[in-house]
Amino acid sequence: MSRWMDARLGQLEEYVPGEQPQDMQYIKLNTNEFPYPPAPAVSERLGRGEIEGLRLYSDPTCRVLREKLAVRYKVAPDEVFVGNGSDEVLNFAFWAYGADGVRFADITYGFYPVFAALHDLPITVKPLRQDFSIDPADYLSCDQMVVIANPNAPTGLTLSLDEIEAVVRSNPEHIVVIDEAYVDFGAQSAIPLTRRYPNLLVVSTFSKSRALAGARIGFGIGDRELIRDLNRIKNTTNPYNINRLSMAAAEEAVESRAYYEDCIEKVIEAREKSKTALREMGFSVTDSRANFLFARHPGIGGKALYEALKERGILVRHFEKERIRDFVRITVGTPEQMQALLTACQGIINNGE
Amino acid sequence: MSRWMDARLGQLEEYVPGEQPQDMQYIKLNTNEFPYPPAPAVSERLGRGEIEGLRLYSDPTCRVLREKLAVRYKVAPDEVFVGNGSDEVLNFAFWAYGADGVRFADITYGFYPVFAALHDLPITVKPLRQDFSIDPADYLSCDQMVVIANPNAPTGLTLSLDEIEAVVRSNPEHIVVIDEAYVDFGAQSAIPLTRRYPNLLVVSTFSKSRALAGARIGFGIGDRELIRDLNRIKNTTNPYNINRLSMAAAEEAVESRAYYEDCIEKVIEAREKSKTALREMGFSVTDSRANFLFARHPGIGGKALYEALKERGILVRHFEKERIRDFVRITVGTPEQMQALLTACQGIINNGE
Repeated sequence: MSRWMDARLGQLEEYVPGEQPQDMQYIKLNTNEFPYPPAPAVSERLGRGEIEGLRLYSDPTCRVLREKLAVRYKVAPDEVFVGNGSDEVLNFAFWAYGADGVRFADITYGFYPVFAALHDLPITVKPLRQDFSIDPADYLSCDQMVVIANPNAPTGLTLSLDEIEAVVRSNPEHIVVIDEAYVDFGAQSAIPLTRRYPNLLVVSTFSKSRALAGARIGFGIGDRELIRDLNRIKNTTNPYNINRLSMAAAEEAVESRAYYEDCIEKVIEAREKSKTALREMGFSVTDSRANFLFARHPGIGGKALYEALKERGILVRHFEKERIRDFVRITVGTPEQMQALLTACQGIINNGE
Repeated sequence: MSRWMDARLGQLEEYVPGEQPQDMQYIKLNTNEFPYPPAPAVSERLGRGEIEGLRLYSDPTCRVLREKLAVRYKVAPDEVFVGNGSDEVLNFAFWAYGADGVRFADITYGFYPVFAALHDLPITVKPLRQDFSIDPADYLSCDQMVVIANPNAPTGLTLSLDEIEAVVRSNPEHIVVIDEAYVDFGAQSAIPLTRRYPNLLVVSTFSKSRALAGARIGFGIGDRELIRDLNRIKNTTNPYNINRLSMAAAEEAVESRAYYEDCIEKVIEAREKSKTALREMGFSVTDSRANFLFARHPGIGGKALYEALKERGILVRHFEKERIRDFVRITVGTPEQMQALLTACQGIINNGE
């Protein structure tokens, strides 16, 4: 850091995103992107005068997009907040609500401890059970903000809506954030609960099931008082946080439900088939309900498998982290991509690499 | 605020952006947008597969855009930081460098005091001279971070490069931020000084002279250690801060210099003509070198003029603030828009409204 920088900020650990090679030489199964393009309506919309409109500022209130999300999720427009990716929504939530401390799992989205350190918040890290499932009892009546990813990453395991509700109900003095980035691939959304529990904030994204990772659109749904809180932080940091093109793309994506449901079905099918095939090869694979698989093989370490796959032109994600060092996280791609992955895995295992 | 929100955050004053009516019924001269569309290369680029690419994350390092900006400004790519609008760059700079306090003018970009309050930084506010010019002596050897907009807003007045350099040189223990949002319309850029002064950060934007307000792209140029500081904050808040489409648009815009220089010349010509015409009508008008005029008329208050113009379908900006209550800030539009503005002003004055 420079000698002028605030000393505490200068020592913060940075979040390390997955590799993002820009030259496309890999089958890219490492950052949980959607394998199909955005809905046709998205392209049509972006052609229609949206580019000339770029000379004008975007709507700082994101009114149209919030209205569409409200219809989609059966809430009111002022119960919706739109962020520059769900990371922005999560960051604001930690900032606003974390002063008494934040509780989350040892194995979960790696950005939670980074946000906590950024805002100098105490944390309580609860280990997942031996089978990587979350024990909801760890989050009952805990006098801290709670953050749970459902499905969890990188395990893909879910909590039931009843389990989530018990956590929310038992912590009326603190905010419970449910991070539903992967919910559309097979978990139950807690959004309906936001109308009954004013301390529940559900955070989601267009990056996974809506094929718009590159547009950077996330959202939060909760009681209108929570949404007002998030808007206050937005309006003191960056009121025009969403650009016009991404906003237009997201508006069209919300309306293109049939297209996305179709694609999601294909992803789920590819996930289940690949899960079975990997297990037949001797892999242990969690019962993921997300758009990725979390797998290890008794014959090869996680890092070695990651590297052997990369040599074969396939990128997956490996985390150099206790308890999960032996695993790789494999984004579910198209059937063809998954076939290439399975063939490569078989080759690697046969060679005893 | 909700009862869960951090009490200090909950009391922050929010920045109030100019009105952004989304339905286009006004001649919009209120938020300093560029009156011409983005360069043709921008549209061409956004059509070429960029939309399908949205399913993938954007490059968190903004490599190509930084390289192009580096060539344009004769610096190195690691001396360039790209933000989600220049507001994000300014926010990070206040956060990183403001602990000893921040010094800025009483009449300047209204976001500076908001950022200072957000990060709980002491401030020293220096009044502009009677004629609204900045007295550089107010910023010499001042033991605080200094933030100067050049040209200043909403006055449009400039400091010379020598005056800026004296401020930077006299404050080696603190960062000096020069906010050059409007520099392309007639001030001298301090970017060349960044190579000699490691405590200088120049902040700029694509929102004004590159017709991309709706794309949300800002940048900072300074010593690579400063850029590393800003990246550290980015990587602890939102590593994918720039979306793919805006990044592509910005890359093309940097390359389209001839197009923009042409348009900028038209804006400057319209500014000078309108300045003269307003003065002939009895307005006092500052000698703005930006893409806006700052004007008052002895016969009508600023708020009344703003309202009378709005009734006639023309939006300008009025600030309910000491010393400048009598003024309006008028974005320089096309010659046709400026003619409509002048006609409306003449009508309002004649009617003694």
